[in-house]
Amino acid sequence: MKVLVLGAGQLARMMALAGAPLNIVISAYDVNTDTIVHPLTLQKLGTGLSNAIADAEVITAEFEHIPLPILEQCQQSGKFLPGSEAIQAGGDRRLEKALLARCGVASASYLVINNEADFKQAVSELGSPLIFKSALAGYDGKGQWRLKAPGQADAVWQQMADFLAADAKQAIVAEQFIGFNRELSLVGVRAGSGEVNVYPLTENHHVNGVLSVSLARPVNIMLQQQAEQMFAAIADNLNYVGVLAIEFFEVDGKLLVNEIAPRVHNSGHWTQQGADVCQFANHLRAVTGMPLGNTELLRPTLMINILGEDHVPAAILSIAGLHLHWYGKQKRPGRKMGHINLSADSLAELKARFARLIDLLPEAAFPELEQMLGRVSD
Amino acid sequence: MKVLVLGAGQLARMMALAGAPLNIVISAYDVNTDTIVHPLTLQKLGTGLSNAIADAEVITAEFEHIPLPILEQCQQSGKFLPGSEAIQAGGDRRLEKALLARCGVASASYLVINNEADFKQAVSELGSPLIFKSALAGYDGKGQWRLKAPGQADAVWQQMADFLAADAKQAIVAEQFIGFNRELSLVGVRAGSGEVNVYPLTENHHVNGVLSVSLARPVNIMLQQQAEQMFAAIADNLNYVGVLAIEFFEVDGKLLVNEIAPRVHNSGHWTQQGADVCQFANHLRAVTGMPLGNTELLRPTLMINILGEDHVPAAILSIAGLHLHWYGKQKRPGRKMGHINLSADSLAELKARFARLIDLLPEAAFPELEQMLGRVSD
Repeated sequence: MKVLVLGAGQLARMMALAGAPLNIVISAYDVNTDTIVHPLTLQKLGTGLSNAIADAEVITAEFEHIPLPILEQCQQSGKFLPGSEAIQAGGDRRLEKALLARCGVASASYLVINNEADFKQAVSELGSPLIFKSALAGYDGKGQWRLKAPGQADAVWQQMADFLAADAKQAIVAEQFIGFNRELSLVGVRAGSGEVNVYPLTENHHVNGVLSVSLARPVNIMLQQQAEQMFAAIADNLNYVGVLAIEFFEVDGKLLVNEIAPRVHNSGHWTQQGADVCQFANHLRAVTGMPLGNTELLRPTLMINILGEDHVPAAILSIAGLHLHWYGKQKRPGRKMGHINLSADSLAELKARFARLIDLLPEAAFPELEQMLGRVSD
Repeated sequence: MKVLVLGAGQLARMMALAGAPLNIVISAYDVNTDTIVHPLTLQKLGTGLSNAIADAEVITAEFEHIPLPILEQCQQSGKFLPGSEAIQAGGDRRLEKALLARCGVASASYLVINNEADFKQAVSELGSPLIFKSALAGYDGKGQWRLKAPGQADAVWQQMADFLAADAKQAIVAEQFIGFNRELSLVGVRAGSGEVNVYPLTENHHVNGVLSVSLARPVNIMLQQQAEQMFAAIADNLNYVGVLAIEFFEVDGKLLVNEIAPRVHNSGHWTQQGADVCQFANHLRAVTGMPLGNTELLRPTLMINILGEDHVPAAILSIAGLHLHWYGKQKRPGRKMGHINLSADSLAELKARFARLIDLLPEAAFPELEQMLGRVSD
């Protein structure tokens, strides 16, 4: 089975590794260089996008910031899953917020800002503090502004005005700032038949807007049920096929959707060791029409991102239950270079292993890990 | 880290899949075509063996039937692990039996046969029944003869005489036939430091001389200790680095070594789902000098070979704990095309899943599975 993935980064790479045992052969479209490459070797495969689309049995995507003409070309092939609408909803915060409203799932109140009048209306209607997010191409904390008090309005608007003036396609979405207790995410998979399997809710810790650590552990059933209902509402509305990730804010036991990602997701990397069938295999199973795989938690697992580093102390590999996942990328400051999965049979054992890992990792490159250490308990 | 693997079959492929997350890039030497290929895509990499040896930081092997000049060339590079002596001991039954005798590990009594006088001596000294195995290139039950009673001696010798006449390098090893209770194997890994980690003993069921099913489950400690002592004796004698597999006959609670394989082994494929760190990752960790990985049993796991088939019913993928591993090979009768790993948290649950799997698989292509079903119990 031949699958073309839009995007040639680590998510396509890990799909290739998970797909090979299923006899799924993956090629990847590198949007930056407009070439088709092997997602593992990054060798150019000497074919153009149109030929690759014709040659593939299924087309999918590893990210949502894909030029619209390419999405439309893939959509017209009739092979694109989860399809253009879902990918666009993940890549344009206006569409995303409209989708969430349409599905009736809880989310922060918002207004779309195209000009100063919109901005003033947002400040007046939504109050402060406010958070502003670019409609397009915003991820990992980029393209965000905050208004802590009304007195900052002029200064904040000036930055946003410059941003809007630079790109006619852009807009900004203003949202009420949510004072949340925790950030959680749910990764699940929906088959063409409508069948849905979801992994347990994962608790996430971000540093400077970028995911640092995810923890998958036996879940609070009330929260899991809320999350699953929202997942089903969104996935069914989009007639979604494949893996979908939803990020939530937890506020006093209630979940609000922060954003969705119409793809395999960084907060689901723990499934490679902590679940029976990982998110990459499950995405491929769904889009190629195979039965979905079991998403139960196999053992409590932590995922720690490796950002901007191409080396970690070899000694960490002697910790039982530790698995390194490098992405084979050139080092750049802050770049997602790989991740560590750490598993154990019990939360107590996981905590002990995590403490040992924290001791071995350089703190400058892995800040704030202790904040998650306290969470690893019954 | 660049690793060159001698051999470009499924074992090199699975090393490549396990190595990528460790940033280990694998190229493979296809002995049949004398070309260097990528073990996953099988694309030719446009370099010759000498350049590949020069380019690699470590050289290892996925099989033991490698022409001696190539072994010597690799050995001279100073990068070859586990090294020429170990590979030759696995590929020449004369050297293997001498190694076992030197290490003082129990094994069937044997004599080397080069001519009719040797044959007569073997029948006279070792008695009958006897099993005869070609010294070179014998695997999966090929190159074997049996003498059930002395009256068959002339007929059996005639076949062996023809075989010996055809190849001056060949010899035949005569062994006492062992009436065993079970076939077991131990896969373990030894680091350059001498540190050894072994997986639990695996019970194997062969059909027509080819491995059909392996079962990894909590082990009998007495048997495990015997096996580990033999493993250490052999691995230390060879100053072995990497994964080594030892096949045993169990006779009334005692183990006799049948043969060794100086490489990752079919009876260790269950480690991909049933152990914390799989045999492929552990082999690569050892030969590249990384810390060895945990070899504890994670959960009881069965491995079922897929022989001569390039298709299985998709419905088997809906069994929890089931993982398909295709090798991407062209279909040929009897060829190892892939394997199924089946895991569960308990032996009772594993048995239930196995029974469901047996119902779904075509019996003609998967014979004698029921014989292992009875073994899956406490």
